[in-house]
Amino acid sequence: MSTASKQPAAPQTAITPTREQNYTEWYQQVVRAADLAENSPVRGCMVIKPWGYALWENFQRVLDRMFKETGHRNAYFPLFIPLSFLEKEAEHVEGFAKECAVVTHHRLQAGKKADGRPGLVPAGELEEPLVVRPTSETIIGASFAKWVQSWRDLPLLINQWANVVRWEMRTRLFLRTAEFLWQEGHTAHATEAEAREETMRMLEVYRVFAEEWMAMPVVTGRKTDGERFPGAVDTFSIEAMMQDRKALQAGTSHFLGQNFAKASEIKFLDQAGTLQHAWTTSWGVSTRLVGGLIMTHADDDGLVVPPRLAPTHVVILPITPKPETAPAIHEACEKLAKRLRELPYAGRTVEVEVDRRDLRGGDKMWQWVKKGAPVRVEIGPRDLEQGLVSVSRRDRGVKEREAMSPDALAGRILDLLEEIQKGMFDRAKAHVDRHSRKIDDPKEFRAFFTPSKPETDNAPTEIHGGFAWSRFCMDPAEEAKLKNELGVTVRCIPLQGGEDPGPCILTGKPATHRVVFAKAY
Amino acid sequence: MSTASKQPAAPQTAITPTREQNYTEWYQQVVRAADLAENSPVRGCMVIKPWGYALWENFQRVLDRMFKETGHRNAYFPLFIPLSFLEKEAEHVEGFAKECAVVTHHRLQAGKKADGRPGLVPAGELEEPLVVRPTSETIIGASFAKWVQSWRDLPLLINQWANVVRWEMRTRLFLRTAEFLWQEGHTAHATEAEAREETMRMLEVYRVFAEEWMAMPVVTGRKTDGERFPGAVDTFSIEAMMQDRKALQAGTSHFLGQNFAKASEIKFLDQAGTLQHAWTTSWGVSTRLVGGLIMTHADDDGLVVPPRLAPTHVVILPITPKPETAPAIHEACEKLAKRLRELPYAGRTVEVEVDRRDLRGGDKMWQWVKKGAPVRVEIGPRDLEQGLVSVSRRDRGVKEREAMSPDALAGRILDLLEEIQKGMFDRAKAHVDRHSRKIDDPKEFRAFFTPSKPETDNAPTEIHGGFAWSRFCMDPAEEAKLKNELGVTVRCIPLQGGEDPGPCILTGKPATHRVVFAKAY
Repeated sequence: MSTASKQPAAPQTAITPTREQNYTEWYQQVVRAADLAENSPVRGCMVIKPWGYALWENFQRVLDRMFKETGHRNAYFPLFIPLSFLEKEAEHVEGFAKECAVVTHHRLQAGKKADGRPGLVPAGELEEPLVVRPTSETIIGASFAKWVQSWRDLPLLINQWANVVRWEMRTRLFLRTAEFLWQEGHTAHATEAEAREETMRMLEVYRVFAEEWMAMPVVTGRKTDGERFPGAVDTFSIEAMMQDRKALQAGTSHFLGQNFAKASEIKFLDQAGTLQHAWTTSWGVSTRLVGGLIMTHADDDGLVVPPRLAPTHVVILPITPKPETAPAIHEACEKLAKRLRELPYAGRTVEVEVDRRDLRGGDKMWQWVKKGAPVRVEIGPRDLEQGLVSVSRRDRGVKEREAMSPDALAGRILDLLEEIQKGMFDRAKAHVDRHSRKIDDPKEFRAFFTPSKPETDNAPTEIHGGFAWSRFCMDPAEEAKLKNELGVTVRCIPLQGGEDPGPCILTGKPATHRVVFAKAY
Repeated sequence: MSTASKQPAAPQTAITPTREQNYTEWYQQVVRAADLAENSPVRGCMVIKPWGYALWENFQRVLDRMFKETGHRNAYFPLFIPLSFLEKEAEHVEGFAKECAVVTHHRLQAGKKADGRPGLVPAGELEEPLVVRPTSETIIGASFAKWVQSWRDLPLLINQWANVVRWEMRTRLFLRTAEFLWQEGHTAHATEAEAREETMRMLEVYRVFAEEWMAMPVVTGRKTDGERFPGAVDTFSIEAMMQDRKALQAGTSHFLGQNFAKASEIKFLDQAGTLQHAWTTSWGVSTRLVGGLIMTHADDDGLVVPPRLAPTHVVILPITPKPETAPAIHEACEKLAKRLRELPYAGRTVEVEVDRRDLRGGDKMWQWVKKGAPVRVEIGPRDLEQGLVSVSRRDRGVKEREAMSPDALAGRILDLLEEIQKGMFDRAKAHVDRHSRKIDDPKEFRAFFTPSKPETDNAPTEIHGGFAWSRFCMDPAEEAKLKNELGVTVRCIPLQGGEDPGPCILTGKPATHRVVFAKAY
């Protein structure tokens, strides 16, 4: 390769520690190295940096299109929820009251601070405290009660893109933050059957998004009673397996029955003229998905972004050691970029960035490796002479390159991106399959979730376990005990492949289904 | 017209009161009739309904593209700002501390409410109160201070789409709400000249958006010292004239000098190796623009949406009096819709909705008139027989129709939409010109802003006044006095056509510029 001599000696890996050495710390380092996000001065709130936000914008664009294709429209509801609204649904308030930000004042004025120094202090106390929305069922319910009068107003299919706040003591960028960005769908229907159908339709939208766009395989299933959304009749989720074999709940779809319709008085006159409560659903995914993408695909050199969601598909790096050849190289780069940008890909066009920053070529290349751009193209003086460009794929070794003509690259780029996309899914799927096991022997079950080395404070947790597909009698007390002992929970009762009567793995009592047991984020 | 006999008798106007009868109340009725937004149970916070939010989504799409084309990238910063951050910039805290939502607790627990009843009460008091962002200069400054180290990191060009809260006692949907949606651009530069250039570039982006997309003519200019953004060196704005001749500040762009860079310690090593403070800007537009669009274009029949920003360009209404002809009519509607949807328009394709709801034809037609869809197409049995469709334009009388073949419509629709867009701008511009006047006589100035009938509580304010282009000596005390006496303020010192030395209209002292005086929202 013509430019190889200009690269600095590559480090063993760009990210230290590696996944194997310390998965948790590796995750933080990838987020930093890919310039995705950082902690803010506000406890538990993150700053999403441009590359991380561009990923989220692509998630939004694709999901938003899927929501609109299934008949939903966007709207926007207040950030604040009066305390009395939260109190309307008994289970709901129990679930959310413990972890919310409470607004009590609407003004600041000069006064004495807690430490006696002069400064601004809260003033203008509110008659009723306001809660910063942890989720919007109750405030949206108040609108729905006004909007729904007759069966003709149903179904009502609404989505909101918004920020929400759930106070968290232990936070991790993207995976668990006090403030996060999400979408929350809220729908009302005339019958239970229609609401259940909607619940499953949106679960399927999430599955398709996870698998076909994020290249992240998931298991779809129903939650046990202990893991239901507070106030829901049934909660369904998509569950993905991360590289450390722990589960990540990546999206949820709730059938709320008439619980919230009763709490908010969402009533309609049916075709027979009878007043009835509506049946509602809600469903959401959040910036947590970005964490899922990282933990599914990133490697010891940094992030790897699936092409269909990549902010930049192709990075072109001009290699200009001599000023006299620089203009011709820059021209060749721009010409190639222009050509690639005309090609349609994954609902937009191929996104190309020509990186002309004044940085050493090796540093620049490594920045793009760490950010996970799917394809890198280098053009240096000798490439130009030979009419070639040097192409590297992020899903292959950093040093692997292929020389080809710009024509050949333009002819091949769409296939190449799809090949990378498919390869990423296949690799992730093989990982899930490798670490999913039907277990019927209680000893084997216990061993599956027990590290072979004892955990200590200064040694990282050993990577072990995975998804155990085992029978469960659905006794909540047993579930709680298991969580306590092994840190293992029932991720879901799978929609597919779960029905298989036999003895419960925990109690030996008769069970009808296998469930997915795993440790989880 | 074939379907005219099926229309109910049209009311005199769809909106009562009319603009002339009571402009303020007319505005509220248009917002309601067009189904744009409504008040929520949370004081001062609005619910943006699907048609209103679809408008905002189009604003976002176009503006976001313009921001990206000028080199900006999106990011996301915390909703909460520690009180101490707000206190860093003296003028800034003075301007914003009086009207903000303050989070003081992070939990709720069972207790006794103010009225003695048992219920949830705030618990977990925060060590330092958090302010819900009224604007993000200070919290973004904290990130910029970390991101900027060297001249190579500059310029830093960031935008954020977010919700903000400014506690307001008197609110009006879209125009003034406690919570609103906006974008805030924040940039840092190595030199004053570059920061000033950025300030003017974004002002120009706003002018282009207002005039070419919203069809809303604006005056661009600099704010007087009394109207500057708290903490800015210079504030520039676009000012539009509403139909009641009052001004609406529709967007602002601030040159912040080094004020916030000093408060947040945004410092960089320049090329000579010297540590310097950066120069920053900020700029924003909000959902207030939706209010501006309404007050520029809506009429006594409801909203009129400029085609380039319309969520739906063409509404097709099947007229099906007899069940036996209904299938053929529905087929003709879908066929026309499919054909129109293939045409590219204003950065997307023509958006068509076939409205097959089970409603009386006349009611349905009026709903779309009130929502302001640019073009309505009706297809009934006789139209179908004759191979024609019946086309109505929202910018013409409700009863005006033109019969044409589907071919002719498909061939003409793009020109038609642009013709409507241009017509709306021209009409709005003529209104601004008609009510803008160079005034040099103090008596005339006073008369211009004084209603001919006295205002009373139960009679609406008479529509009068406009933009007075008069000379001003820039004395802040005189400006305050004028505001007090006549409710008139200096909207801006126009960038174009303002320089014209002569005596000040208020004091007779020498002045160098004409400014735009007006009453304002």
